[in-house]
Amino acid sequence: MPQKIVKLTVKDVRFPTSLEQHGSDAMHTDPDYSVAYVVIETDGGMKGYGLTFTVGRGTEIVVCALKALSGLVVGKTLEEIVGDFRGFYRLLTSDGQLRWIGPEKGVIQLATAALLNAVWDLWARAEGKPLWKLLVDMSPEQVVSCIDFRYITDALTEQEALDLLRKAQPGKAEREQQMLKEGYPAYTTSCAWLGYSDQQLTQLCTEALASGWSRFKVKVGADLEDDERRCRLIRQMIGLDKTLMIDANQRWDVGEAIRWVTSLAPFRPLWIEEPTSPDDILGHATISKALAPLGIGVASGEQCHNRVMFKQFLQASALQFVQIDSCRLGSVNENLAVLLMAHKFQVPVCPHAGGVGLCELVQHLILFDYISVSADLNNRMCEYVDHLHEHFTSPVVIRNAHYLPPKDPGYSCEMLESSVETHQFPGGEVWANRLAKALE
Amino acid sequence: MPQKIVKLTVKDVRFPTSLEQHGSDAMHTDPDYSVAYVVIETDGGMKGYGLTFTVGRGTEIVVCALKALSGLVVGKTLEEIVGDFRGFYRLLTSDGQLRWIGPEKGVIQLATAALLNAVWDLWARAEGKPLWKLLVDMSPEQVVSCIDFRYITDALTEQEALDLLRKAQPGKAEREQQMLKEGYPAYTTSCAWLGYSDQQLTQLCTEALASGWSRFKVKVGADLEDDERRCRLIRQMIGLDKTLMIDANQRWDVGEAIRWVTSLAPFRPLWIEEPTSPDDILGHATISKALAPLGIGVASGEQCHNRVMFKQFLQASALQFVQIDSCRLGSVNENLAVLLMAHKFQVPVCPHAGGVGLCELVQHLILFDYISVSADLNNRMCEYVDHLHEHFTSPVVIRNAHYLPPKDPGYSCEMLESSVETHQFPGGEVWANRLAKALE
Repeated sequence: MPQKIVKLTVKDVRFPTSLEQHGSDAMHTDPDYSVAYVVIETDGGMKGYGLTFTVGRGTEIVVCALKALSGLVVGKTLEEIVGDFRGFYRLLTSDGQLRWIGPEKGVIQLATAALLNAVWDLWARAEGKPLWKLLVDMSPEQVVSCIDFRYITDALTEQEALDLLRKAQPGKAEREQQMLKEGYPAYTTSCAWLGYSDQQLTQLCTEALASGWSRFKVKVGADLEDDERRCRLIRQMIGLDKTLMIDANQRWDVGEAIRWVTSLAPFRPLWIEEPTSPDDILGHATISKALAPLGIGVASGEQCHNRVMFKQFLQASALQFVQIDSCRLGSVNENLAVLLMAHKFQVPVCPHAGGVGLCELVQHLILFDYISVSADLNNRMCEYVDHLHEHFTSPVVIRNAHYLPPKDPGYSCEMLESSVETHQFPGGEVWANRLAKALE
Repeated sequence: MPQKIVKLTVKDVRFPTSLEQHGSDAMHTDPDYSVAYVVIETDGGMKGYGLTFTVGRGTEIVVCALKALSGLVVGKTLEEIVGDFRGFYRLLTSDGQLRWIGPEKGVIQLATAALLNAVWDLWARAEGKPLWKLLVDMSPEQVVSCIDFRYITDALTEQEALDLLRKAQPGKAEREQQMLKEGYPAYTTSCAWLGYSDQQLTQLCTEALASGWSRFKVKVGADLEDDERRCRLIRQMIGLDKTLMIDANQRWDVGEAIRWVTSLAPFRPLWIEEPTSPDDILGHATISKALAPLGIGVASGEQCHNRVMFKQFLQASALQFVQIDSCRLGSVNENLAVLLMAHKFQVPVCPHAGGVGLCELVQHLILFDYISVSADLNNRMCEYVDHLHEHFTSPVVIRNAHYLPPKDPGYSCEMLESSVETHQFPGGEVWANRLAKALE
């Protein structure tokens, strides 16, 4: 029975994380982790849940963009959409009027991501599978039929994508079993947000070590002396056998990035993340080249706005670690293109997560990547941040610093109704109370 | 007396241009030319007018973004803002929460452009000068104090920018006089929108030739045979001594662009504009290299979203013509950075215009470029489209295919109140009537 989408609702949901400096970095000093939260409903009574992540103010703009896109999905059946998913992706991203305010970037692409995440959730629920399993069970032909190859054929053609997927078919069942048993390796960013004190850092790092974590990321970029002290502290605690990454959240210019990271080289970071503008492909290439002799790679992607940008980062050897994001790119469709390009260029994918719901979503993509594309765990790991999972109906399960594959049908981004209600901005209880206090 | 900004209003104003295919191209087949229109007011009773251009649906999203930004300007005095204009630019573009939905791209950057355009308009009015004259009269130090050099210092430092401006001081007065007398050279896009019939094209081209136009742009990219026929038609009409440009509005992939333009080479276009994704720096470089032997340059910029992208286009020799836009980049501030980088890399600037108000705005920037930066008219011209000027209080003045410098104080983007009122979306008369008809 076809499921016709008859309704789309969207909500502005915000968590007051800035109060305790959770998520603080060199450029986002006071984030209130938020989502534009989408629910689509079918005439058959099914629901699909989707979201995109934001950090407070501006969420209402993404909500506005979702309302503008809703006319392109309401009235269509799930079968129509997934029967020509490439066409539907093109419809959303190439609307002759809406594309002007992108194209495929910024607010309108974030809204596209949220909407398509809801469609993928609906599809996975309709099939009774977690999203990763839906993807893993697709034929190579089905997978590529979801991808819009516009603007990337000079790096990856449809035929090449098919060949890559076919080549990865042997061993899929074994890798799926391996993931179900062991899970996908993770690293933690929870210990060292920029706004945390040394004491807090020490305590969180001690706890993380005790829980089996072996890969740690530290925020840097505001003050070099602080960075040296914090990196020294954490390297001393974790020892040389464990992995340290550093993240500047776009704080530097190109020359400055090279000088600053060179100063931090004695602490042996695996990568420097977002050393400069997320738009600066050539700048990242220059930084990569300068840092290679120090054994430090460059990682970026959480604000890389589409497949055309990722294509160039790969073509220019500007990244040694590709950090896909489940909510900034155009959902699963565009991430599939990036996973396949990264595989072709032989650059490991280490997804961005954290925020609200990003861990829940992106675990599905990286499981698919391992089982059906890369078949490789070398130098690969998925970010993990221990925040806000309690607001989801199917929160991530971490065991021994690994993501265990989700089992519930869907894309794991349904939130608890009570959480949505109390955190809605500005009318929900949490915000109404803060406003009342501010007015006292 | 300091002027404190006490109010910001923003309106969604749309013109139903899609009815007659004005502005149609290979990717925007039914544009309704629109603006998010901003008015700021001071406690001293002054007003500043600003806008950003859109093509219909989605304007309401930019309006929403402007409301989000308004808190960053209301309450400040004009003196505070222009006394640290670099700081104010940084404040708008680097807000710790709002930057997540950009940064410096898409909806939020369009809104930033509209808001800053209004501030520049207010400043020019306060000084009693047209904007171009305000800029021309600034010292090199004042000019660079408006520019945020973040992320571009590997291509242009503040000191280099100062040196370039100082080197251009001699002859400024003469060039200003020359502009006042002759105006700045223009080309026309009005003859050959993609949706126009051959008959319409022939008639408009005949009229344009009679009015003294010698440079013509043709939209291409939907169908090769159509393109060949249309290019042949217009080249036959204008002869070989006049200039023809072609514009694909991002229709092709890289390889396709090279093949298609090679087929059109016999019609001797000066440039191919927007051959592929506006984000594809390396793709444009590949196309530039392939077309150079045919004597065809590559032009782009109307959807180039910030100075970091322009920097790379220049670094990679990916463009032979830089097309700045007054409403997509972060207003005058960011355009100043691009003009100076283009000058350093010795690439001519040929601004994008048309739309609603783009001609009115960008003429100021290109006048400044000639008088105070490039001192060169070789291979340079500003786009002109003969649409919608009647809605402005100080519309452009074209004489013999040249822009004559505006004389009224401000940035020329104040619209007639009656035009704003009747075209407001969705409540204005024009749209209410269309809705009523649709419901009949």
